[in-house]
Amino acid sequence: MTDTTKVAGGVCAPRGFRASGVAAGIKPGSAEKDCALVVSLARAVAAGTFTTNRFKSPPAQWSENICRHGAARAVFVNSGNANACTGEQGMADAVATAEEVAEALGFASQEVCVLSTGVIGVPLPMDRIAEGVRGCAGALSEDGSHDAALAIMTTDTVPKQMALEVPLRSGAVRIGAIAKGSGMICPNMATMIALITTDAAVEAAPLAQLLRQAVAVSFNRISIDNDMSTSDATIVLANGASGAPALAPGSDDFDAFGEALREVCTKMAQALVRDGEGATKFVEIAVSGAATDEDAKAIARAVATSQLCKTAFFGQDPNWGRIACAAGYAGVPFDPSHVSVWLDDLAIMTKGRAADYDEAEAEARMRRPEFAIRIEVGNGPGTSVYWSSDLSHKYVEINADYRT
Amino acid sequence: MTDTTKVAGGVCAPRGFRASGVAAGIKPGSAEKDCALVVSLARAVAAGTFTTNRFKSPPAQWSENICRHGAARAVFVNSGNANACTGEQGMADAVATAEEVAEALGFASQEVCVLSTGVIGVPLPMDRIAEGVRGCAGALSEDGSHDAALAIMTTDTVPKQMALEVPLRSGAVRIGAIAKGSGMICPNMATMIALITTDAAVEAAPLAQLLRQAVAVSFNRISIDNDMSTSDATIVLANGASGAPALAPGSDDFDAFGEALREVCTKMAQALVRDGEGATKFVEIAVSGAATDEDAKAIARAVATSQLCKTAFFGQDPNWGRIACAAGYAGVPFDPSHVSVWLDDLAIMTKGRAADYDEAEAEARMRRPEFAIRIEVGNGPGTSVYWSSDLSHKYVEINADYRT
Repeated sequence: MTDTTKVAGGVCAPRGFRASGVAAGIKPGSAEKDCALVVSLARAVAAGTFTTNRFKSPPAQWSENICRHGAARAVFVNSGNANACTGEQGMADAVATAEEVAEALGFASQEVCVLSTGVIGVPLPMDRIAEGVRGCAGALSEDGSHDAALAIMTTDTVPKQMALEVPLRSGAVRIGAIAKGSGMICPNMATMIALITTDAAVEAAPLAQLLRQAVAVSFNRISIDNDMSTSDATIVLANGASGAPALAPGSDDFDAFGEALREVCTKMAQALVRDGEGATKFVEIAVSGAATDEDAKAIARAVATSQLCKTAFFGQDPNWGRIACAAGYAGVPFDPSHVSVWLDDLAIMTKGRAADYDEAEAEARMRRPEFAIRIEVGNGPGTSVYWSSDLSHKYVEINADYRT
Repeated sequence: MTDTTKVAGGVCAPRGFRASGVAAGIKPGSAEKDCALVVSLARAVAAGTFTTNRFKSPPAQWSENICRHGAARAVFVNSGNANACTGEQGMADAVATAEEVAEALGFASQEVCVLSTGVIGVPLPMDRIAEGVRGCAGALSEDGSHDAALAIMTTDTVPKQMALEVPLRSGAVRIGAIAKGSGMICPNMATMIALITTDAAVEAAPLAQLLRQAVAVSFNRISIDNDMSTSDATIVLANGASGAPALAPGSDDFDAFGEALREVCTKMAQALVRDGEGATKFVEIAVSGAATDEDAKAIARAVATSQLCKTAFFGQDPNWGRIACAAGYAGVPFDPSHVSVWLDDLAIMTKGRAADYDEAEAEARMRRPEFAIRIEVGNGPGTSVYWSSDLSHKYVEINADYRT
């Protein structure tokens, strides 16, 4: 485990990055910030992971293409309008946005990623976007991460940012991040977006590989409502401004950096679950004893996404039957008589049957805002962890009643 | 389309069947009926489909084995206790229940299917079961279907039964059914159970095939909460008492009978959705234009089970963005610019973009208790239909708060 240190500054904690967030009137009838810009002073290596939804939004398509080429200098994000299901106009608007940013900063548009989150099916208000781009370009600052984190929010209730210092043998580097999530809605559909910056020097292909590995065990291991949006995206920019030498794949420093990147992604993913729409509980689902990690993941996912388990979490009901049942339909072979379940440290199901536990003790654990469900399905080496929120009245309210 | 006629009598509408339902105190602190018995006067051909959950309950295992041998004379069902996650005692109790029924009726225990639905992890109260068996055996009647339908209910709010007369060339036959469903809970976990009777003569292998085909497009096409229980079961008994000759696979009569069986299963499945826990809407999701029926089914399923679509149905919100989005993550290839969506007859999304529709007209349709979402994803021949309920405050209440 790399001995990382938390530092302030979010995406501007790594050297050579500036950020800003402004209000441009894209969120209808709101004075809230809705445009964010993150810029690397030097050309940076870029990598990204993007939604696999067939209705992938034009900005996500644009940014995915840029990340495929491996270099970028800026990421512009607007909230309030997802520019999704907007046809050919949508792609033209995404390109025009990148061009606006490029012109304002003196870059090429091919160096500018753009992302959009918010209402779908409505064309981007390009005059507002232009105003947002100019505002963001003028407000860029070393202290701009908080504003950027605010500007990308939709139904999020708190901005999410963090940064770590990573002591590598070849010198310290930093990794910063902002993210938004919360559910997939606001007002039609929100989205998960994470922007990560680092002053480490990493080449494009190994950076993309590290990001994929980190996302697989962080953002892809959370369940708020199990709906994947048209705009989900994670982008990382690595500008090498720390002065530390390029990280060679296979080296100890490379592995330590990868571990720190995973730490950042995991902490941000957990922050999304904690701020999930209507969430009152943060629940870790840990599965062990499966034949493979994939098997363990399928079981953890079934429990983490089960509507019945999630309502039981909300109801503070130690309902091991629902947990066992969800594990049972995950499509993974196991012997039911070898399955045990714990609520934190308390056994609630042992070898396929009810454990002899005190109901009051179980309920006391579930009254806490955070608890863990541990599921052992056998003696295999496979393990996995998921993080889930509960399904509350508030979730139904947010998602059923927002138009009224 | 076979020209079937609705008839009264439920599972006793076909000749040679008797049924009953009694209260034996298995539902704790309740005077409600909780034991049901359906009996064929003559030995019948039997077929069944059962949950694939790894925690398949001992009674479901017992009955599956009997159906595999293709003959039975009785099905006994108790509600209030699922006899699931009960270890070796659970199987011993399932066998003992079958033996009680066999003794009361003068059958062999190998001719008696048993099913249980209700709380899991608690051993069956065998003294109550014995009382229920005796009560049911004594109460068997040609008018007993309604009592049996009542006795298998858990969180269901209405009993579900029906019967059809099917005019075959070789003579009329009847198909009757009772079913329960509602969600997977009460208080730990309820379940889908359907018992079907017919006085047609069909051999075991073709009957099993027809049942599998019927279940695939009926009970496997509904979504209340997407959780598959440990006890889901459909059992059909065919006793040949109509006097019509045995249905030869491939004959017109065989096909007509299969169609009628599908009609019964579909109507009962729809009845389960209409009585879904907390359901205020019955929504048909019809997908067309996919490359294959399997592709269409994956898309229909994604929309029917999306938490966001279901809350939008509850909120009476014509949110085509959520529908398109769910279709987009179904894992099926299609061109987004070829996708159109209708709400009943009203186009709300056309060729990948918002249709030009009147919001008030859309909302008026969604205020109805039943409506259809039609999704066209291209020009392919693949089609599929799913039936879904909405996700309401009441669902969360039922499933979160039942212990308090």
